[in-house]
Amino acid sequence: MNNSRGFGSDNHSGVHPEILESLLSANSGHMPSYGTDVLSGQLSELCKKQFGPSCEVFPVFNGTAANVLCLSSLIESHNSVICARTSHLQMDECGAPEKHIGCKLILIDSPQGKITPEQIEKELIRLGDQHYSQPKAVSITLPTEYGTCYSLEELKALRKFTKENNLFLHIDGARFIYAPYYLGCSFYDLAEGLGIDAISFGGTKNGLLFGELCLLFNEKSKMNFKYRRKQSMQLPSKQRFISAQFLELLGEKAIWKQVAETASSLALYLAKEIADKVKSVEITQSTQANSVFAKVPKSWIKELRKTSFFYVWDEHSFEVRLMLSFDSTKKEIDQFINKMLELENV
Amino acid sequence: MNNSRGFGSDNHSGVHPEILESLLSANSGHMPSYGTDVLSGQLSELCKKQFGPSCEVFPVFNGTAANVLCLSSLIESHNSVICARTSHLQMDECGAPEKHIGCKLILIDSPQGKITPEQIEKELIRLGDQHYSQPKAVSITLPTEYGTCYSLEELKALRKFTKENNLFLHIDGARFIYAPYYLGCSFYDLAEGLGIDAISFGGTKNGLLFGELCLLFNEKSKMNFKYRRKQSMQLPSKQRFISAQFLELLGEKAIWKQVAETASSLALYLAKEIADKVKSVEITQSTQANSVFAKVPKSWIKELRKTSFFYVWDEHSFEVRLMLSFDSTKKEIDQFINKMLELENV
Amino acid sequence: MNNSRGFGSDNHSGVHPEILESLLSANSGHMPSYGTDVLSGQLSELCKKQFGPSCEVFPVFNGTAANVLCLSSLIESHNSVICARTSHLQMDECGAPEKHIGCKLILIDSPQGKITPEQIEKELIRLGDQHYSQPKAVSITLPTEYGTCYSLEELKALRKFTKENNLFLHIDGARFIYAPYYLGCSFYDLAEGLGIDAISFGGTKNGLLFGELCLLFNEKSKMNFKYRRKQSMQLPSKQRFISAQFLELLGEKAIWKQVAETASSLALYLAKEIADKVKSVEITQSTQANSVFAKVPKSWIKELRKTSFFYVWDEHSFEVRLMLSFDSTKKEIDQFINKMLELENV
Amino acid sequence: MNNSRGFGSDNHSGVHPEILESLLSANSGHMPSYGTDVLSGQLSELCKKQFGPSCEVFPVFNGTAANVLCLSSLIESHNSVICARTSHLQMDECGAPEKHIGCKLILIDSPQGKITPEQIEKELIRLGDQHYSQPKAVSITLPTEYGTCYSLEELKALRKFTKENNLFLHIDGARFIYAPYYLGCSFYDLAEGLGIDAISFGGTKNGLLFGELCLLFNEKSKMNFKYRRKQSMQLPSKQRFISAQFLELLGEKAIWKQVAETASSLALYLAKEIADKVKSVEITQSTQANSVFAKVPKSWIKELRKTSFFYVWDEHSFEVRLMLSFDSTKKEIDQFINKMLELENV
Repeated sequence: MNNSRGFGSDNHSGVHPEILESLLSANSGHMPSYGTDVLSGQLSELCKKQFGPSCEVFPVFNGTAANVLCLSSLIESHNSVICARTSHLQMDECGAPEKHIGCKLILIDSPQGKITPEQIEKELIRLGDQHYSQPKAVSITLPTEYGTCYSLEELKALRKFTKENNLFLHIDGARFIYAPYYLGCSFYDLAEGLGIDAISFGGTKNGLLFGELCLLFNEKSKMNFKYRRKQSMQLPSKQRFISAQFLELLGEKAIWKQVAETASSLALYLAKEIADKVKSVEITQSTQANSVFAKVPKSWIKELRKTSFFYVWDEHSFEVRLMLSFDSTKKEIDQFINKMLELENV
Repeated sequence: MNNSRGFGSDNHSGVHPEILESLLSANSGHMPSYGTDVLSGQLSELCKKQFGPSCEVFPVFNGTAANVLCLSSLIESHNSVICARTSHLQMDECGAPEKHIGCKLILIDSPQGKITPEQIEKELIRLGDQHYSQPKAVSITLPTEYGTCYSLEELKALRKFTKENNLFLHIDGARFIYAPYYLGCSFYDLAEGLGIDAISFGGTKNGLLFGELCLLFNEKSKMNFKYRRKQSMQLPSKQRFISAQFLELLGEKAIWKQVAETASSLALYLAKEIADKVKSVEITQSTQANSVFAKVPKSWIKELRKTSFFYVWDEHSFEVRLMLSFDSTKKEIDQFINKMLELENV
Repeated sequence: MNNSRGFGSDNHSGVHPEILESLLSANSGHMPSYGTDVLSGQLSELCKKQFGPSCEVFPVFNGTAANVLCLSSLIESHNSVICARTSHLQMDECGAPEKHIGCKLILIDSPQGKITPEQIEKELIRLGDQHYSQPKAVSITLPTEYGTCYSLEELKALRKFTKENNLFLHIDGARFIYAPYYLGCSFYDLAEGLGIDAISFGGTKNGLLFGELCLLFNEKSKMNFKYRRKQSMQLPSKQRFISAQFLELLGEKAIWKQVAETASSLALYLAKEIADKVKSVEITQSTQANSVFAKVPKSWIKELRKTSFFYVWDEHSFEVRLMLSFDSTKKEIDQFINKMLELENV
Repeated sequence: MNNSRGFGSDNHSGVHPEILESLLSANSGHMPSYGTDVLSGQLSELCKKQFGPSCEVFPVFNGTAANVLCLSSLIESHNSVICARTSHLQMDECGAPEKHIGCKLILIDSPQGKITPEQIEKELIRLGDQHYSQPKAVSITLPTEYGTCYSLEELKALRKFTKENNLFLHIDGARFIYAPYYLGCSFYDLAEGLGIDAISFGGTKNGLLFGELCLLFNEKSKMNFKYRRKQSMQLPSKQRFISAQFLELLGEKAIWKQVAETASSLALYLAKEIADKVKSVEITQSTQANSVFAKVPKSWIKELRKTSFFYVWDEHSFEVRLMLSFDSTKKEIDQFINKMLELENV
């Protein structure tokens, strides 16, 4: 099997051992399909407990689908969604929101991946004008694509502003588990406690084999969602296998916390090692989740990648993204730092 | 864990042990995501070998997606697809083809789930008339929703007719593995050998945890398919786990044949037992795959379902569908027959 | 200018002289565009008066758009619309409902173009089943494509049934003006009086240069309709010119009644002449609007068309459609009958 | 009739007298519908003569539709269209491109409404990356929304660059007639002579009652366009009335040149009068078509609008747009200038 260990992406890693165990346990006998199984029922209960009593959960296959389905349950085709220019929604979904919802994305510059009420307010133009796609939702990423977290105060300010301006608030949470860990709060605090409308809650990047959750809090959004999911080709037939994994991730053993802790700590360690030891490399983002962003000398890229694969985030400035995973190790980091030091001393 | 063993559906069963084993093996270390892993490369090679050298394979999450993506790669929104009134495309996809392709389905009556060139010909009307959705593809199900198989001669006639009439030919093969088993031919004979344009090749109903394949043979259909798949929210990030399962199913061990043989034989056994022993029940379809269709006295349904769950296919005639799976057993069948005999003798 | 006078279609005729006059009058000076002009304001008032105080009117360009927009304001993509197999929606819009709404059409056989509550009831299956497009609207054509009219009792029964079954009721009224004329009732009786949800009210086939109306009665349907119309490319910029024509058609001079009376009377005359004089031709539909359907000997078609053009409605039975218009004449009919008699006596 | 004469928009004016005359002439007798009439045939010939022998013309109802249909005939849903941030496509079509094509718009800053090869080149990123909407077409506006014209050299450079980079080139020509007039060239020079793929050629803003043309030069774009137009609800039934108007506009009498000359000259006169006489007002754009852009003291707006209505283009800088039309007069301009001078001297 090819070795591509490294800091490429948290979806380069495989399945977390305990989550894999849950898959094996779920593989016993027959169960009804399409979400009517016992495990999916248990997941519904668990999500109400973790995210708030108004939470309704719909498992889907991947993150693009979670984002598109959450948003399509809130807005219509003549609406626009305000989001960061760096958002996955804009940059990495090949136009899925446009095709499936028919909506427009309004992009906001956000060097740290975060957007503010002031920025959103500037886009609230031509309200009521039939010639212009009407802003109706704000989608933020938590943690952001730059591994930063909105503070609870920032989130509350966004929620207050969006409510006052009749805008839905959606979270793209492909790596949501890192937010409560970093912020020291509960899932509830970031969900029903915050008054959020819908969350795309990620599994695949956090140790699952596959599977994401649409967490819906807004009544409008829940209505007819089951048909919407099916028609959008996202109704899993053997849904028990997605539910089982999330029961493990979010259940009593709190595997999510273990994953978040491991990868976050290693990210902090990597960032600190670079800052402390490697003069030619500049850390560009605050490390608040499981990634480290840094500007690296162009000439190092090829050599460094031989030690551990990673992506260049900005082809002009040679800002790179180093992504940590539940199965990353201190040893890998040390080797990587050593390679950097070696390159620095050439 | 709840017991819902029975004849409900082949997606009520879990994962085939050897396929599960392949999943576990695939879970070693890091691999690139989105189809660039080693296993996905191996699957591409294997599919060319099994289905024909022109075959290109794109794994997706579920059967609805496989159908919609195969067809959307062949036709445009102003086209229509000719299919059986009983097809999954029409009856069980909540309008996914209409929403995603924008096309119209033209429905043909087919008491056995099969459609003929003569029936298709009657729908080739108003060609060139801009007011009318133009027929451009035929979609057949193999085996059909009624567990019947087109013969090779029937398939060749359909291909000949569709070619002559400038129609693409697509196979919805959610249970495709049963066709070469029943017909005693190779995958190739039903794919490139037949000159098919695209096949939705099923995994989930045949022992996989999840995953289906779009098998493309037509050059038009291959073009830009990768963007189409991504924009349709069907690009698996940890694709290695779908590829691994299909490598097992279709590889040297030919698990597919083992699955087909087991479930087909049990279906034949069940059908024969009913025919031989249960006078009040009428077998309604020829048993050519893994299902048995039969008319059952209305008063029996509730009681029978306590022994083994199954679906009533026609609410008026009480035709029921008894579906066998790779993990069905002779013992279950015997118990079911015994229950029938008990009911008959009341 | 080429002579294609005849019985081809009521959109082969030009513009009614008084309606043309209204266009000329509207062409005075500047007026705001996109529906904010004085004439469009007057049309809003007139529609409330004619169709009921809850009526909101949105002019659009053509009939396909009126149908698609009315329905899209009532249902979602996972819904189905129940309609006659012979409906324009199914037969003559090249899949526009499927592409723009993403919905499915459920077709009902209707030899006279009319559908009944009993027929609709049979299609109300699998309610609540996420795999099946959920029936949510019934669309009827008034008068039908066969020139027949539902009686007021039939309409009330349809409305009662659809209300009880939570189905919206839409009228495709490309030739709506003939219905109140034939039924001897008011527009109100067939609109708010009936409790209809939305009407596509035709202009082009009734003497206008271009233009149709979406008449909305249901609050859900009115909401955001202006954005829907614009995004669907149906917001007329110089809307005053559509409004002016409808003010003339529906205003004090009641041009609509004059058009309906002229064409209806001529249709009845044509039908009677055929029935009385031409033994080889069989009238196939009751004449309740401006068309006559009749089976004509195959060998006559080519010759007859030289006298007056018309369409063959059924290529197998040689049922033809003879369509009368506001500018049709008794003389043309007499010539046509004479030609028939000549052919009969050959 | 309300007086809203002024500089609001060229679609506030009515129908040009000679074009109205052509409508009246077209209203004689019956003609086949849906584009098979004699006048539509003549328009096809005329367009080949004016724009180039490879030109195919499809009349549609409005400008949004012309833009969407031209682009949808060239690209697929996974593509993006590069255009100016100020384009009608982005700002004034309520998301029609996104809904109907499913594509993404890539926006380029363009203070004068024009975009350059250098700007486009920066957006040609991630080519071949399945996660990113692939750039496939450039849409420019000619003249631009700011009343400026690309020079022939600029157009040739854009065409060269787009061809080299496998990008289609589309012109949004709602006011196309002003370009050959300003540039002193023929329609051909800006169409087939330039090697353009498709043009949305405007009528409504240039003296027509309604109607726009899709002019197609690319073979791909022509294919199946008739179905595309119909399914997009843009097939006019009495198409003769659109064709007649364009025959007049583009025919021997060259009404287009008369319209362009009148409105252009008045725009130049208005701009010069302001520049010469009104110190507090700053002309912000070069006057190359029929509009004048100028920054006006905020306190003047309300008063000035009483003399002649106009739109504020930028709510922050109080840049206003003064639009001239075929029926604008020197007298109106003089009154407007006088009002300005009056305000200046308060």
